[in-house]
Amino acid sequence: MSARLVECVPNVSEGRRPDVIDAIVKAVGEVEGARVLNVQSDESHNRSVVTLAGDAESMAQAAVLLTRQAVALIDMNEHRGHHPRLGAVDVIPFVPIGGATMDECVALARRVGETVWTTLQVPVYFYAEAATAPHRVRLPDIRKGEFEGLAEKMRQAEWAPDFGNPRPHPTAGAVVVGARRPLIAYNINLRTTDVPVAQAVARAIRESSGGLVNVQAMGVQSTSGLAQVSINVLDAARTPLARIFDLVRVEAERYGVTVAESEIVGLIPLDAILDVARAHLRLRDFDRGQVLEAQLTE
Amino acid sequence: MSARLVECVPNVSEGRRPDVIDAIVKAVGEVEGARVLNVQSDESHNRSVVTLAGDAESMAQAAVLLTRQAVALIDMNEHRGHHPRLGAVDVIPFVPIGGATMDECVALARRVGETVWTTLQVPVYFYAEAATAPHRVRLPDIRKGEFEGLAEKMRQAEWAPDFGNPRPHPTAGAVVVGARRPLIAYNINLRTTDVPVAQAVARAIRESSGGLVNVQAMGVQSTSGLAQVSINVLDAARTPLARIFDLVRVEAERYGVTVAESEIVGLIPLDAILDVARAHLRLRDFDRGQVLEAQLTE
Repeated sequence: MSARLVECVPNVSEGRRPDVIDAIVKAVGEVEGARVLNVQSDESHNRSVVTLAGDAESMAQAAVLLTRQAVALIDMNEHRGHHPRLGAVDVIPFVPIGGATMDECVALARRVGETVWTTLQVPVYFYAEAATAPHRVRLPDIRKGEFEGLAEKMRQAEWAPDFGNPRPHPTAGAVVVGARRPLIAYNINLRTTDVPVAQAVARAIRESSGGLVNVQAMGVQSTSGLAQVSINVLDAARTPLARIFDLVRVEAERYGVTVAESEIVGLIPLDAILDVARAHLRLRDFDRGQVLEAQLTE
Repeated sequence: MSARLVECVPNVSEGRRPDVIDAIVKAVGEVEGARVLNVQSDESHNRSVVTLAGDAESMAQAAVLLTRQAVALIDMNEHRGHHPRLGAVDVIPFVPIGGATMDECVALARRVGETVWTTLQVPVYFYAEAATAPHRVRLPDIRKGEFEGLAEKMRQAEWAPDFGNPRPHPTAGAVVVGARRPLIAYNINLRTTDVPVAQAVARAIRESSGGLVNVQAMGVQSTSGLAQVSINVLDAARTPLARIFDLVRVEAERYGVTVAESEIVGLIPLDAILDVARAHLRLRDFDRGQVLEAQLTE
C-alpha cells in the first residue's frame, strides 16, 4: 500500500434499500487507488457506514463521487431512522492512518467540501480538526436539530455553512466534512425496549456529561427493538472498549437491565481487540507480535 | 511467503541462561527460508518455546541444526524446572499452517526424527499425528517418568524408541518429534502459592479427567512463585480461551482462590483473540474482516 494512506468513512443516510446502498458504494469503483474496506448498514438507524482507504487524491475523488450518487438517490424528506442526521451524506471524515498527517487530512476535507458545494450545491460544514470555530468542533452540536430543523438553524449567523448558501439542499440537506483521528463506532444493546434507560446510561458513560473521556454516546432504538447505547470511542488506546462495556453493564444494572449484545460498526484497529483479550484474560506481557498473522504478513 | 508453509515449535530445556538460548536459536539463522517468529523463555519451567516458520525443507534443516546446538549446550543431568521434559530438546512439533498438509508434516517429522538419531545419536519418539501406536499419541504419556526415569522406561518393549537404541543419550535424553494442528500454550497464575490447588483445578478443566475437550492442563509453580495452571489448547476454534479462563476462575473459587493473571506462550492465531473479544463484549456479527490491519494487508 501507499506510504501516505488516508481512510475516509462517509456515513450515508440509507440503511434499508440494498440496491441504493450498492449504487452509492459502486461510485467509488470508478476511482483508481480507492479501496472499499467495509460497508455496514443498519436498518433501524437507516444509515450505512462506508469505510474507504487509499492515497489522498483517490480519497478526494471517491468522496465526491459517492456524495454525488447519494444526493441523486436519497430524498431526506422521506428519510426516517433512529440516528440523528443532517443530510443524504451525513458526515465525511478523513482519517490519517498510514503515514499521512492530520494537516493533509484537514486540507483534503477543505478541498472536498468546496467541491461538494460548487458541483452539487449541497452546503458544507467543517468539523473536528477541520472546524472553523470552536462551537463547530463537535459533530453532535452541528447535527442538533437534524435535517428537519436545518432551514431554521442555517438562518442563525453562527450556523451559516462554511461553504454554500445558508439554505439546505432541498433533498440532500447539508453535509459535514472533517478530519479526525481513527474512532471506533460501537453499539451496545440492552435487554429492554425502554429507550430512556439507554439514554440514561449514555449520559452516565459519556465525557460531555461526566463520564469517560474519549467517549460520545446516545440512547436510541436498535433494529431488533432493543434499547441501544450508540457510542463513538475517540481514543480506544486510552479508553479501552472493555472499560466502556463494563461501565455500561454496571450503569444498566441500576435499572435492573442486562446487556444483550454489542456490535462494532465498520472497522476496528487490532490493538483495540487485543486490549479486550488482555482485560478479560488478565493477560500479562502480551505483545501484538504474538499474533500469528501479524508475524506472517510482516 | 511460500504457498506451503510449515510452523515448527521446538521446546528446548533451557529457560534461564540467555547466552545458551541465543546460541541455540541462532543455529536457525544458517537456514535460508527459515524465520524465527518468536522465542519465549520461562525461568520457572526452565524451558524455551521457539516458533519457526518456512517451507518444509527449511523447517527440516532448522529443526536438526537447533537440536544439534541444544544437545551440545544442555546437560539434562543438571536441569531442574517446573515442567516435565524428556530431553535437551523436549519436543519438536511440525504444524501445517499455510497450504501445507498434515501428511506433509508427518513425513517431515519422520525424516527429522531419523536424521536426529543418525547424526546426533539422540533416540526419538514420534507423537500426535506422527505416532506409531495409539499409546504414543499423547505427549504427557510419552513424557511420563521424565528424563530421570527414561533409562528404566526405555527398557520396556512398549516404550522402545521409534528410532535409535533403547538407551537415553547421556546428556540429552530423548526427543519427541511429531505433527499436530496449531495449539495455544496458555498459563493461568492463581493468587496462591499452593500448587496442589493448581493441580486440582487442572484436573477439573482438562479432557483426560472429565473437563473440557481439546484441553490439556497441569498444575505447576510459576516463576513468580504463584501456583500455575499450565494449559495446552488443542483446538481453540471449538474450545475458546475465554471458556477455559472462566472455568479456571470458577474452579479456583472453590478453594477461595482468585485468578492473578494469565499468559499466552508463543504465538496465537488472530481468530482465538477475536473470540475472547466476542465473549467479553457479547459481540454480534463480528467478522475478522473488520480488523483494520486484516484489510490493509490483504
